[in-house]
Amino acid sequence: MSTPYVAVVGAGIADPSTFAVAQEVGRLLAERGAIVVCGGSTGVMEGACKGAKEAGGTTVGILPGFMRSEANDYVDIAIPTGMGEMRNALVVRAADVVIAVEGEYGTLSEMALALKTGTPVVGLGAWELHKRGARVDAYVEAATPQEAVDAAERLWNT
Amino acid sequence: MSTPYVAVVGAGIADPSTFAVAQEVGRLLAERGAIVVCGGSTGVMEGACKGAKEAGGTTVGILPGFMRSEANDYVDIAIPTGMGEMRNALVVRAADVVIAVEGEYGTLSEMALALKTGTPVVGLGAWELHKRGARVDAYVEAATPQEAVDAAERLWNT
Amino acid sequence: MSTPYVAVVGAGIADPSTFAVAQEVGRLLAERGAIVVCGGSTGVMEGACKGAKEAGGTTVGILPGFMRSEANDYVDIAIPTGMGEMRNALVVRAADVVIAVEGEYGTLSEMALALKTGTPVVGLGAWELHKRGARVDAYVEAATPQEAVDAAERLWNT
Amino acid sequence: MSTPYVAVVGAGIADPSTFAVAQEVGRLLAERGAIVVCGGSTGVMEGACKGAKEAGGTTVGILPGFMRSEANDYVDIAIPTGMGEMRNALVVRAADVVIAVEGEYGTLSEMALALKTGTPVVGLGAWELHKRGARVDAYVEAATPQEAVDAAERLWNT
Repeated sequence: MSTPYVAVVGAGIADPSTFAVAQEVGRLLAERGAIVVCGGSTGVMEGACKGAKEAGGTTVGILPGFMRSEANDYVDIAIPTGMGEMRNALVVRAADVVIAVEGEYGTLSEMALALKTGTPVVGLGAWELHKRGARVDAYVEAATPQEAVDAAERLWNT
Repeated sequence: MSTPYVAVVGAGIADPSTFAVAQEVGRLLAERGAIVVCGGSTGVMEGACKGAKEAGGTTVGILPGFMRSEANDYVDIAIPTGMGEMRNALVVRAADVVIAVEGEYGTLSEMALALKTGTPVVGLGAWELHKRGARVDAYVEAATPQEAVDAAERLWNT
Repeated sequence: MSTPYVAVVGAGIADPSTFAVAQEVGRLLAERGAIVVCGGSTGVMEGACKGAKEAGGTTVGILPGFMRSEANDYVDIAIPTGMGEMRNALVVRAADVVIAVEGEYGTLSEMALALKTGTPVVGLGAWELHKRGARVDAYVEAATPQEAVDAAERLWNT
Repeated sequence: MSTPYVAVVGAGIADPSTFAVAQEVGRLLAERGAIVVCGGSTGVMEGACKGAKEAGGTTVGILPGFMRSEANDYVDIAIPTGMGEMRNALVVRAADVVIAVEGEYGTLSEMALALKTGTPVVGLGAWELHKRGARVDAYVEAATPQEAVDAAERLWNT
C-alpha cells in the first residue's frame, strides 16, 4: 500500500476535550505514516493537523475559500478551492478513510458523501443515523482515538 | 416572491409507494407554482418530475454525469455536470427549500449540505439524525406529501 | 436529435452593437428550437437571452454566485452555482455547441474548455488563437449571427 | 511572503525538449522555495515535478480523475478531484503565479482562468492571444526557464 490519506472531519469550533481528541487522532495517524487531509480550518481540523505535525507528519487543508491564509497554522499544503461547503466532496475524494470526530452538519455531509461513494468511515462521537426509528449501522464506531486509528488502519490496508 | 425553486431529493431506486409519494410531492409543488429541481435521475427524482409535469409544471435535472440522456423522461431542463455526487451541492444551491423523500446516503448528503448552508429542509420518511443518543430536531417532518408541500410553501414565503 | 442546447458566451459588458449581435444569435437559436444556455449575467449573456425570449425560446443561466437574483431578466431557469468562474466549465458541459461572441478572458476559458472536451465552437469576432506565430484553426469562424447559427445547427446535427 | 505556490501548466504529452524546459522550470522554482502545483499528470506536469524533486522541492498534483495512482511519480501530494478538466480552475486557484509551458487547449483554459481572476501568468512558448488581428499583451513572455522563473519570482513578491 502506498501512503494512506486519511481525512479527519469535524466542526470548525471545538471545545478543549474535542480538540484533544482530534489532536490525538492526528498524532496517531502521522505515527502510522498516514497523510492527514482536512478542510484546513479551525476546531477539529486544526487539532488533527496540530497532532500530526507534533508527530512529524504531513497535513493537507482543502479550504472552502480563496485565500491560503485561511488555513490553520499546522497545514503544510493549503489548497484554496473557493467552493464553500462543496469542497467537502473534495476532502472525501482525497481520502482512503474518513474519521469523523463529533461534528455538525458539514461533517454529516462528509460522512454521507463518503458512505455514498464507498469510502469507509470511522466515527468518534459522530452523528448517529436512524431510519424509521432504527439505528443504521453505517460506519465503524470507535470509543477512543486509538480505536479510531486502529480501525482506519485496518480499512486502509483492505 | 419570485418563482420558488424546490429540490426534491431521494434515492434513485424507489418502490411504487415511494415513487407515488414523490409524484404527489411534485404534482403539488407544480400546482403551487414552484419549479421542481432534482438530480434528474430515476426513482424519487423521476417520480417528482413526473408529478410536476402532470400538473403542467417545470422540472430541472442537475445530472451527475456528462450526458443529457441520463435524465429521466420528465426533466424539462437537463444540466449534465460530470461532477458525480459532488453535484448534490448544486442541487441544494439551486433550491429555496429541499424536500427529502426517504432516501439513502446521497440524500443524506443533500440534507446535510442544506442544513449547513441554511436552506430549510422538509423530510418525508427521511433520515433521522441523532447525537449522543438524542434526536436532533434539524428539519420539518411531514407525514404526507400535502403536509410536506404546505411546509415548503410556508418556508419559501419566509 | 433531441432539443439542442447551445451556449452563447461573451463578456458581461457589451456595447450596443455587440449586444445586438448576441440578441440576434439568441433569436435565431430560439427560432430553430435550441435552448440557449449562458452564464446568466449581463452583456452578451443578456443579449442572447433577450433575443431568445423575443422568439419564444427557453433560456438557462448558470450563475457564478449564490443568488438567483443575479440572473438577467430574460433567464427562464436560473441555476446559482457559487462556483465563480469555475462555473464556466458547467456552461460548456451543458452545451452541444458553444457560440462565442467576441469576449474577454472568461469567454476564452469557455472556448478553451469546449475545445479541450470536443464540444464544437463557433466564433463571432472571438479570440484568435496563435502558436509560434501562426494562427491555429480551432473553431468555426462566422461573420454574422446568421452564419454563426447556421454553423451551430450543422454542428448540433452532426 | 509565505511560501509561494506556482502552477506549472502544459500539455500531458511533451517531446524531450519541452519536457526538459518544464523540468528546468520545476527545478528553479524549488530552488527558490516555491511549491510546484500542477495537474499531476504526464508531460509538462511530470517534467515540472521531476525537476522540483531533483532540487528537493515539494510538488502537488490536482488530478482530473478519482485515483491517486494517476499522479506522476514525482507528485508528493496527490489530490484526486474527479472533476475532469473542471479541475483546471482548482490548479489556478491554488497558485500565486501560473507558468505556461507551451500547451494545448487545457493549458489555454488555465491561462484564461488565471487572467480572468487576476492571477499573473508567465508564458514559455505559450498560446499567443489575438483579437481583431492584433496581439493582446496578456501575460509575461519568457524565452528561457530562467527568465520565466525570474518573472514568476518578481510576481509572487508583488
